[in-house]
Amino acid sequence: VIRVAVDAMGGDTAPQAEIAGVVQALTALPGRFIVQLVGRSEVIKAELAKYPDVDQSRLEIHEAAEVIGMAEKPLAAVRKKPKSSIVVGLGLQKAGQSDAFVSAGNTGAILAASTILLGLHDGVERATVATLFPTGNQPVLVLDGGANVDCSARELVGFAYLGTVYMRDVLQHPSPTVGLLNVGEEEEKGNAITREAHNLLKRSPRLHYIGNIEGRDIVAGHHKYGVVDVVVCDGFVGNVVLKFYESVGRLFVGLVKQLVPDLLQRAELRELFRILDYSEYGGAPLLGVKGVSIICHGASPANAFKNAVRVAVQSVEADLSKHIGAEFAEGETAAEA
Amino acid sequence: VIRVAVDAMGGDTAPQAEIAGVVQALTALPGRFIVQLVGRSEVIKAELAKYPDVDQSRLEIHEAAEVIGMAEKPLAAVRKKPKSSIVVGLGLQKAGQSDAFVSAGNTGAILAASTILLGLHDGVERATVATLFPTGNQPVLVLDGGANVDCSARELVGFAYLGTVYMRDVLQHPSPTVGLLNVGEEEEKGNAITREAHNLLKRSPRLHYIGNIEGRDIVAGHHKYGVVDVVVCDGFVGNVVLKFYESVGRLFVGLVKQLVPDLLQRAELRELFRILDYSEYGGAPLLGVKGVSIICHGASPANAFKNAVRVAVQSVEADLSKHIGAEFAEGETAAEA
Repeated sequence: VIRVAVDAMGGDTAPQAEIAGVVQALTALPGRFIVQLVGRSEVIKAELAKYPDVDQSRLEIHEAAEVIGMAEKPLAAVRKKPKSSIVVGLGLQKAGQSDAFVSAGNTGAILAASTILLGLHDGVERATVATLFPTGNQPVLVLDGGANVDCSARELVGFAYLGTVYMRDVLQHPSPTVGLLNVGEEEEKGNAITREAHNLLKRSPRLHYIGNIEGRDIVAGHHKYGVVDVVVCDGFVGNVVLKFYESVGRLFVGLVKQLVPDLLQRAELRELFRILDYSEYGGAPLLGVKGVSIICHGASPANAFKNAVRVAVQSVEADLSKHIGAEFAEGETAAEA
Repeated sequence: VIRVAVDAMGGDTAPQAEIAGVVQALTALPGRFIVQLVGRSEVIKAELAKYPDVDQSRLEIHEAAEVIGMAEKPLAAVRKKPKSSIVVGLGLQKAGQSDAFVSAGNTGAILAASTILLGLHDGVERATVATLFPTGNQPVLVLDGGANVDCSARELVGFAYLGTVYMRDVLQHPSPTVGLLNVGEEEEKGNAITREAHNLLKRSPRLHYIGNIEGRDIVAGHHKYGVVDVVVCDGFVGNVVLKFYESVGRLFVGLVKQLVPDLLQRAELRELFRILDYSEYGGAPLLGVKGVSIICHGASPANAFKNAVRVAVQSVEADLSKHIGAEFAEGETAAEA
C-alpha cells in the first residue's frame, strides 16, 4: 500500500481544497494507497467531519502544529519550524513511514526541505520543479519551473535527464524528445549558457535531443524537427512563461465571456477550457530528490489536489526515484558529456 | 510632409505584403506622408502595377540591388551589402532624405544598421526593440523584445525610460507605469541583475515605477499596484514570451476550430481574434537610435505594414526621437540613479 502524505495547511484555502481533493482521490482514483494528512489535527478533523462517508481506514492524521507562511524565507523557515506541516510531512518519508509528499505551501520551503530531508541522487546537481503545460495534444514538460533562477549549462543538461525519466515513468512516453528553450533555432543563438548547454546536450547519451526551440514551439507541440516533449530552461524563464500561460488562459476566457457570453454554456467550450486547465495535471514534481515530492500551486482547487495524489501514486508505482538514481549513476557521462 | 522609407524586400512574402500594406496606408491613414519603397526597382514596379489607382505622387522608388537574408550574420551582412534595402533605406534617413524606416527583414541587421547609420542618443547604452502585447484593454509595451539577449541592470533601466517616452509620444499615455518582469513581487526575488535593476528603478526620477511584476501580470493589464503599461526585461525572456504568446493564440484558435467549428463564423469571435491580433500593432519600434526605425515580423501580412507605416508617421509627428534625446540628456540621473 502506497502512503501519500498531503500537507493540509499549504494552500490559499487550506484545509478545504486539500481535504476535498483527498476525498475525491480516495473515491475516484485507482490504486492501493492511503493518505496521510499533515497539519493541525483539530482543523483537519473539523474539515473531515464534512465527509462522513469517506473511508477512514485509508486516512491518517499526522499532527504538525506549525505552518510555514508563503512570505517566509525558505531555508530559515525550514530550520526554525521543525513542527511545520512541510517538515513533518517530508520527515515521515525520510523515516520510511511515507512514500510521497504533496504540498501547496511555500515552494522554496518545499524545495529546501525536500533537498535537506530526502537528499539528492548522486550526480544530480540541483533538484528541479517540472511543470506540465497543457496543449491540444500531449502535455509538454517544462523544467525548471521556477526553483532555480540561475542555472549552469550542466544543470540544464541534468534537467533534460530528469524530465526524460519522468516522462517515461509517469507519462508513459517511451522516448520523449528534449528541446532547449532559446531565442532561435540556430547553433549560435542565445547567451553563453544556452550555447554551452546546446553543445553539451548534443553530445549527451541516451537523450533524444532535438535542438534549440523557440517560445512558439512549446505549446505548438511540434517543431520543425518533430514533437517536443521536454523543454529545458532556467527557472527565471520557466517561471515567467508558466505564469504568463496561466494568465493568457484567463484573458481568453474573460474576453469570450465579455464578447460572446452565451458561448460559455456550450459543452465543447467547456471541453476546451478543460484541455487548457492546469488543475488536470495536479502538481509539479520536484525531480532529483531521493523520494517523491509534488508541489501544487497555492491557489489549487480540490481537483488539483486529487490529481497531485494521482501523480504521487504513479511516481511511487513507477519507481521514478529509483530510475532517476539509476540514470544518473549510469551517466557520469550526462554531467561530463 | 513626412517621408517613410519601407523596405520592400524584407518579409517572407516580399514585395507583395509590403506593397499591399503601403497601398492600404496611403488610402486609409490620416496624415501628410509619402512612402519611399526601397528595393529592386523592377520588382517593385511590377508589383505596384497591380494597383493602378494608387496616388503615384505619394510614392517614390529607391533602388537597392541587394537583399540581406534572414540567416546572414547581421554585422557582416550590413558591411558587405551597402546596396541592400536595409542599408539604403536607413542611409536615406542618415542623409536627411527620409524621416522613418520600416522593414520586415533580418532583425539583427536592422538593429546593427540602425545603430551604425543613425547612431544612439547620448546616454543610451543600447537600442531596444519594443513590442506591444495585445490585451483586453490597452496594449502593454514589452522591452526588450529580443534584440539584446544579455542585459545589464543599467540597460534595463534605460529600457524603462525608452518605453516610457514611446508610450507618451505614440500611445498618448501621459503617465505610463513601468514594471520589472521577475519571478515574484518581493524585493529579493530574481537574479543578481533583476535585483540590481529593481534597486536602480526605485530611485530613478521621472519614472512611474510600480515594482517587480510576474509573468501573469503582463496581459492581465493590472497588478496589485495598478495597471502595468511598460514591462522591462532582457531580450531572452522578452523574445521567448513574445513568441510564446503568438503561439498560444494560434493554439486557442486551432482548438476552437477543432471543437466548435461553427463558432468561427461568429462576428464576436472574429472580434476576439482581432483584439489578440499582433498585426493591428504593425511593427516594433527600435528605440534609442537617433531617428525612427520600425521592425516588422518576417511573416507580417499587409495589415501589419499599413500599421507599421502609421506607427512610423506617429513617431515622426510626435518628435519621438527628439524627446528620447531630451530624456536621456536630462537624465544622467537615469543611468546613475
